Amino acid sequence: MTLKIGYIGLGLMGKPMARNIMKAGYEVVVHNRSRQSVEELVKGGAQPASSPAEVASQVDVVFTNLPDSPDVELVALGENGIVEGAHPGLIYVDNSTIKPATARMVGKKLADKGVSMLDAPVSGGDIGAINGTLTIMVGGSEAAFNKVMPIFEAIGKTITHVGALGDGQIAKAANQIMVAAQMVAMGELLVMAQKAGADPQKVVQAIRGGAAGCWALDNKPQRLFEGNRNPGFKVYMQAKDLGIVMDTAKEYGVSLPTTGVNTQLFNAMLEMGMRELDNSAVIGVIEKLSGTTLNSE
Amino acid sequence: MTLKIGYIGLGLMGKPMARNIMKAGYEVVVHNRSRQSVEELVKGGAQPASSPAEVASQVDVVFTNLPDSPDVELVALGENGIVEGAHPGLIYVDNSTIKPATARMVGKKLADKGVSMLDAPVSGGDIGAINGTLTIMVGGSEAAFNKVMPIFEAIGKTITHVGALGDGQIAKAANQIMVAAQMVAMGELLVMAQKAGADPQKVVQAIRGGAAGCWALDNKPQRLFEGNRNPGFKVYMQAKDLGIVMDTAKEYGVSLPTTGVNTQLFNAMLEMGMRELDNSAVIGVIEKLSGTTLNSE
Repeated sequence: MTLKIGYIGLGLMGKPMARNIMKAGYEVVVHNRSRQSVEELVKGGAQPASSPAEVASQVDVVFTNLPDSPDVELVALGENGIVEGAHPGLIYVDNSTIKPATARMVGKKLADKGVSMLDAPVSGGDIGAINGTLTIMVGGSEAAFNKVMPIFEAIGKTITHVGALGDGQIAKAANQIMVAAQMVAMGELLVMAQKAGADPQKVVQAIRGGAAGCWALDNKPQRLFEGNRNPGFKVYMQAKDLGIVMDTAKEYGVSLPTTGVNTQLFNAMLEMGMRELDNSAVIGVIEKLSGTTLNSE
Repeated sequence: MTLKIGYIGLGLMGKPMARNIMKAGYEVVVHNRSRQSVEELVKGGAQPASSPAEVASQVDVVFTNLPDSPDVELVALGENGIVEGAHPGLIYVDNSTIKPATARMVGKKLADKGVSMLDAPVSGGDIGAINGTLTIMVGGSEAAFNKVMPIFEAIGKTITHVGALGDGQIAKAANQIMVAAQMVAMGELLVMAQKAGADPQKVVQAIRGGAAGCWALDNKPQRLFEGNRNPGFKVYMQAKDLGIVMDTAKEYGVSLPTTGVNTQLFNAMLEMGMRELDNSAVIGVIEKLSGTTLNSE
């Protein structure tokens, strides 16, 4: 029996992910706050629903993809929320990036209605969402994970069952610690190289094959050298995710000195007119602090 | 005509590098402050010399591999230094990691004697030195670079001519900015994952194939999970190199907020009984700050 799927939250990420689930042959019921994305998907064969409760009541697996922790809490547990359409056996998969503690709380409340929840945040950006090549970090029961696996395979490439509910969000937070660190270090080293008189392009070429090698140095310098700071992954999203990291650190008693600084640098960008740029544009803060601008071709 | 080579500074890195030059068929004259390494290499066919001046006077290319900027200044320009054995056409290659400004100053003084200097710091550790697989970042004239290239190929794998004298050291400083950032971020994310209740091994598995991917996550977590914090690349060397980065930033007018914090974390390790550990052991500072210890197998 093929599972019937619901998808709530058809934004930059959610819309192409819902599309890939439809392409894989699933019947999909969709809901979104603004109607335009719903109509687009309905043209492609999706069924519209007027509330999260209405989606949940009709499907075997309901997905959400929402901006932040309070949105997930509202859509899952609020008025006309998933909880009101819940039925025993329903699996709820949250693709949003939210606080691990919120995921755990929501899952616990839904469990009372016989719902299994998986937290399944993704990384890989809108390109990964469109191409179905996302990295998916999943927390929750093994049984639910195995049941949803074929659908994960329609939207992602690297899919890891990290552990219990909330552990997917912890992996995503860990991911963002490293991503921010790479982006800031790249900005610092490029500005230093240029001001100290070396060619930053040659410096990147010299170091990226060794112990400094990383995703950021593999993917971002050429864009920066071309003067391209467009997203990619937007600064205000990076700042929001770092806020989750710092809240989580506080909640579980962890001190993150460097991520603390990196969070402040991304927060500064929100006030410096850089909120819609790519996260690699954090070099702009180092430029300001150092009174220079990276030369571009 | 085969070049005759000199090698001064036969430590953890210098000794195996001199050996690889000998293996490639070059005649090598060696000098070191302590005699034991000299005797070892002499048994393998090297010629001993009693001072840097004596080495320089006999060879076409003289290498140094020394702990820090003042050592290079002394060996190159001090009493019985290279400058006293200098002859027109001599090429001086410094494999040490020192301040770019020191490299530029030394090179300028030696140029008056007809000597061409290349700064050629390496990365890849003692394993890379033994196997001849080092990354070499070179600054200096193209003519000198081309002449020394066959010797670089005997000691390294990725060899980049970054630019003018000093630019090799700038690339090395840039390298250390990113290496330190990865090591600290890895420590922060592993401690956070564990204290927030996830399995750090699963978290690494979930994130290392995506945008968090990097040399540190590819090479270090398994050692940490096994409770192995032995070098590898020693903390006091990482701290020394970060000192060079921060001096260089000050000298050329660059603000490095995150590398500043990372430098302080490595400096703290010197006072916390961790100076001889691997640079990945910086997780130990995050553990102390967070009142926990990473579980090991």
